[in-house]
Amino acid sequence: MIIVLKPQATKAHADEILARIASLGLRPLYMPGTERVVLGAIGDERVLDRLHLDGHPMVESVQRVLAPYKLVGREMHPHDTIVNLGAVPVGGARFAVIAGPCAIEDREQMERTARAVRQAGAAALRGGAYKPRTSPYSFQGLGREGLAILRDVARALGMPSVTEVVEVADVEIVDQYADAFQCGARNMQNFRLLKALGQSRKPVVLKRGMAARVEDLLLAAEYILAEGNPNVILCERGIQTFETATRNTLDLNAVPLIKQKSHLPVIVDPSHGTGIRELVGPMAKAAAACGADGLLVEVHCAPEEALSDGRQSLFPDQFATLMRELEPFVAAAGKTLS
Amino acid sequence: MIIVLKPQATKAHADEILARIASLGLRPLYMPGTERVVLGAIGDERVLDRLHLDGHPMVESVQRVLAPYKLVGREMHPHDTIVNLGAVPVGGARFAVIAGPCAIEDREQMERTARAVRQAGAAALRGGAYKPRTSPYSFQGLGREGLAILRDVARALGMPSVTEVVEVADVEIVDQYADAFQCGARNMQNFRLLKALGQSRKPVVLKRGMAARVEDLLLAAEYILAEGNPNVILCERGIQTFETATRNTLDLNAVPLIKQKSHLPVIVDPSHGTGIRELVGPMAKAAAACGADGLLVEVHCAPEEALSDGRQSLFPDQFATLMRELEPFVAAAGKTLS
Amino acid sequence: MIIVLKPQATKAHADEILARIASLGLRPLYMPGTERVVLGAIGDERVLDRLHLDGHPMVESVQRVLAPYKLVGREMHPHDTIVNLGAVPVGGARFAVIAGPCAIEDREQMERTARAVRQAGAAALRGGAYKPRTSPYSFQGLGREGLAILRDVARALGMPSVTEVVEVADVEIVDQYADAFQCGARNMQNFRLLKALGQSRKPVVLKRGMAARVEDLLLAAEYILAEGNPNVILCERGIQTFETATRNTLDLNAVPLIKQKSHLPVIVDPSHGTGIRELVGPMAKAAAACGADGLLVEVHCAPEEALSDGRQSLFPDQFATLMRELEPFVAAAGKTLS
Amino acid sequence: MIIVLKPQATKAHADEILARIASLGLRPLYMPGTERVVLGAIGDERVLDRLHLDGHPMVESVQRVLAPYKLVGREMHPHDTIVNLGAVPVGGARFAVIAGPCAIEDREQMERTARAVRQAGAAALRGGAYKPRTSPYSFQGLGREGLAILRDVARALGMPSVTEVVEVADVEIVDQYADAFQCGARNMQNFRLLKALGQSRKPVVLKRGMAARVEDLLLAAEYILAEGNPNVILCERGIQTFETATRNTLDLNAVPLIKQKSHLPVIVDPSHGTGIRELVGPMAKAAAACGADGLLVEVHCAPEEALSDGRQSLFPDQFATLMRELEPFVAAAGKTLS
Repeated sequence: MIIVLKPQATKAHADEILARIASLGLRPLYMPGTERVVLGAIGDERVLDRLHLDGHPMVESVQRVLAPYKLVGREMHPHDTIVNLGAVPVGGARFAVIAGPCAIEDREQMERTARAVRQAGAAALRGGAYKPRTSPYSFQGLGREGLAILRDVARALGMPSVTEVVEVADVEIVDQYADAFQCGARNMQNFRLLKALGQSRKPVVLKRGMAARVEDLLLAAEYILAEGNPNVILCERGIQTFETATRNTLDLNAVPLIKQKSHLPVIVDPSHGTGIRELVGPMAKAAAACGADGLLVEVHCAPEEALSDGRQSLFPDQFATLMRELEPFVAAAGKTLS
Repeated sequence: MIIVLKPQATKAHADEILARIASLGLRPLYMPGTERVVLGAIGDERVLDRLHLDGHPMVESVQRVLAPYKLVGREMHPHDTIVNLGAVPVGGARFAVIAGPCAIEDREQMERTARAVRQAGAAALRGGAYKPRTSPYSFQGLGREGLAILRDVARALGMPSVTEVVEVADVEIVDQYADAFQCGARNMQNFRLLKALGQSRKPVVLKRGMAARVEDLLLAAEYILAEGNPNVILCERGIQTFETATRNTLDLNAVPLIKQKSHLPVIVDPSHGTGIRELVGPMAKAAAACGADGLLVEVHCAPEEALSDGRQSLFPDQFATLMRELEPFVAAAGKTLS
Repeated sequence: MIIVLKPQATKAHADEILARIASLGLRPLYMPGTERVVLGAIGDERVLDRLHLDGHPMVESVQRVLAPYKLVGREMHPHDTIVNLGAVPVGGARFAVIAGPCAIEDREQMERTARAVRQAGAAALRGGAYKPRTSPYSFQGLGREGLAILRDVARALGMPSVTEVVEVADVEIVDQYADAFQCGARNMQNFRLLKALGQSRKPVVLKRGMAARVEDLLLAAEYILAEGNPNVILCERGIQTFETATRNTLDLNAVPLIKQKSHLPVIVDPSHGTGIRELVGPMAKAAAACGADGLLVEVHCAPEEALSDGRQSLFPDQFATLMRELEPFVAAAGKTLS
Repeated sequence: MIIVLKPQATKAHADEILARIASLGLRPLYMPGTERVVLGAIGDERVLDRLHLDGHPMVESVQRVLAPYKLVGREMHPHDTIVNLGAVPVGGARFAVIAGPCAIEDREQMERTARAVRQAGAAALRGGAYKPRTSPYSFQGLGREGLAILRDVARALGMPSVTEVVEVADVEIVDQYADAFQCGARNMQNFRLLKALGQSRKPVVLKRGMAARVEDLLLAAEYILAEGNPNVILCERGIQTFETATRNTLDLNAVPLIKQKSHLPVIVDPSHGTGIRELVGPMAKAAAACGADGLLVEVHCAPEEALSDGRQSLFPDQFATLMRELEPFVAAAGKTLS
């Protein structure tokens, strides 16, 4: 950790801080410069957090040298992690496409959509029973009834299922019905929920928050791993920027960046990442090309009647076309679609 | 609602959509143009949401004419709402300063800090027992023990208390100990928590999310009011932008903008909004000047030892100076500090 | 154009505005609603701009129905435009890779780098003689001497050259030395420069500004086309967001989005788009996958000695590897590398 | 300067870099840690830029300790600079309000508007003759004719005038007609223009770019000072963020932040900063409260007929009200309006 002191800091201020660093068992460094004094501390920087040096009136800035996460980082864990989503391995040679409607609306809609995505080659089924909606007047999901529909449909087709959990109190019930949890963008820093998911061993698809830096996403995953659940799949789904032509700005830079920093698998959600049906295909291919381990795609048997996210949902035949067109890109990236 | 059709849409497509609009009891409008057909629907646009027209393959865009919120909007409720925080009215002639440490660390820290802010003229006491922290290795708060400290200290000084609640399961206990809930920026779209807070009648200080537009904040408040709790105080606390010199970008535009759109009181948190102790004072004054109803300010008896947010916490004497300097700005804005 | 009036607007206000719309030869529409009056105007919306209705005190909002650009839009010009960069067609079946150093530093550096990128399969050569640098103390480019080096090296290798022009007064001299102009991100809204480039017939590589929406980029291109130069190549190079792990956020959404809206070719600059050498390759592949027509890549014969942008410049062997690895992605996208 | 090496860097890599640091006359520091080696360099960091260490393959990150600007920084120049705008001092005890229309449209409009702002107490007159407009089909300004109108009207009323210059070739003519240059947000990094303005001695109102960090703004000002012109007035005018309810997000944090970092005067443009007439007043007051030295405000004799920016222009009587209401805020900030 590098601590830059303010110009008015004296030698006595420096000595006081150096003594505090040494008291924690870290090695202190004193680097007097011509205009500023710089201090260093060598060792586990997480220990140093206890000193809260950024609150010190003589400290201008504190800069970390090491990443603030340990368990999700690649340094201590160089090999790629594979997370098993039911029987589908995510993070290895297979490019896993998880598809389905935004929301579970009724049994027929779910069956029709699931059959279509299964037939087109999807590896797993998605569908939301608890929908976080910006407006209280929008459809909020079927809840437990939706979970039962999802379970039945997924089982009948032999596909693993992923569904969102929005609340600690629901973790247990979602655990009974689904093969994996999805933690949505709006809950990426719902730390209590992250801890609860860390106490399960089921996979967690953790979506990047709309205002979250990649480092924030990795720290959110660290919460889950720190509780004992190593089965985290990270998901890039677009961030909030000034561009209004798309619903979000899908930040594909994050895919190779995360691959550098972390051993966890990364998938991409081009549906929320663009918000526009016609852009989903191109961005799905781009995700495969830059190294993603899979996709989360919204497909609806009749998007013009969808109760949410209709504008970004693919028609079944569009999804089938996408799967066909995706194949050479996935192959070029050294992976397979099934 | 204004619906712009794609260039390839035919008269039959338009008729189909117009029929759907009429079927909901709204008045449909047909406006053929030279290059595009535009449709309109007159009436309660929330009803129209059920049609999910944005998912229709022949619809290019859907634009609302009316605000999507009703209860928090000024149109149906032109007069300013006053929310009583214990005995302190927020939203009227008084400029309410809520001050205290970021986190409750121990009884002595809380007592020293509370006495200092009380003496300087703060109207209410803040302090967090449940701390949402980016890293799992940072101090997470004292929990119930912290709530008890806050209650005791606040009672002894006769100040109302505000504290953050991060989880539905904690609403009941926080309700027992504090005079108002704070819903933090990371939970602004934790809709389950918003609904739970809507079932209380205690005031809720609702902080704007880091990626939330003002409209999103008003819709979050609408969740609380729709459940029956009218006592919401909105709080601008900075948004996520590209500027890195400050922790967040305090968006004071939001204050007069919210005052235009909503009848709810608005306060400002210049501590999180800047992240830098030296900027808290100037931005607190600016908040008063642009029409805010109060402040949420972090003060710590010894910021250099604070377990969180030390860099943005004021020293007690800085807070006392701020309160003195704030007075003429508050007066110029037509309010009083006590 | 759709004009929403304020709640307090009377019938007389509406009539006045409708009369002004009619006076321009457009067809006015009157749509009274339950809570708001909405007006429409059918015809060429650019004419309507003359009314400046958004400044009217009784107007709440004005929403366009048609795109504000005509010449760059796909509606009047459905087929893809091909721009000839010297002998290299950009925008058709060929995926054009333009490579070279950020800045021309000296003849040897340019020769070594150019030979390397030529051998690896680059279609054209880039290199800057006029460098816009954030700090006045950074290397500002060799100017005319650099242009001469670029011309000589490009001619010797039979490659077309692209170089940045930062100022109207330099358009003529750059025109003498290079095969195409580059208009950089910081000058995307230097409208005087755009007009000057519009009076040339040489291709212009127009880079998206760091705060520019796609619509702003298309309007900037419209300036060039409106002056008579149809040879514009758009370039996505990353936008300014809150993410700090990368230098910019490469917004690949923009590629398929521009393809929808405009007939102009689009290339991608993964070097500035990421700012990190290791991310250039993955994002180059992603660009090919989502439909880009080519790349602008920074390569330096010795990045560790580069006078600018060393961190994002590829080593020659990294570029050669990239070109090999790119091939199947380009093929999957239906294009060829040469 | 702090240089963090990659984990795989050897002692030999460190020695090589240390030797390069020493070769420039700076003092090198070697700080081996448990997981990373950190190097330091003490002395003038601008010299170190020549080493381009961030391009080195063994360097993970380079962090400055000192600000990259010298002339605009407060460290070497602790006292506030006062810039004389004609006879109006900006940066001292006077709060200088510069008002007028966005664009000079004709002599009558300019006279009517100027008389109104003069009477209400404005210190200087603004008006644009060269208008940078997003669309080529929007009004582009009257050019030289507009400059003559501005000069005549300003002289007749005894007010200094400020007008935008968008191009190096126009600097001379604008110099003949106006008392101060305005360099607009879109040209903040038009470095050639900055250098040309640096060769004048007339004041330059330098507006912050829409994607510019405060550091970028200060470096842009450094360009002007480095050429010899010390008369720079910085202007905060809003940045580009995800919020769409306002045209830009006025970042008032920047005012006290710049005051900390720089000795130059800072004014605020609440018209562009909000884009909404009704928000101009509250944000003008907030600007005064947080320490600004003045305002740049758009006023038009008839905003509903304005050829640009009508929605954000004040009516004359609104401006007069603003000046009256501003007075106590300016006084509370220790300044005077005239």
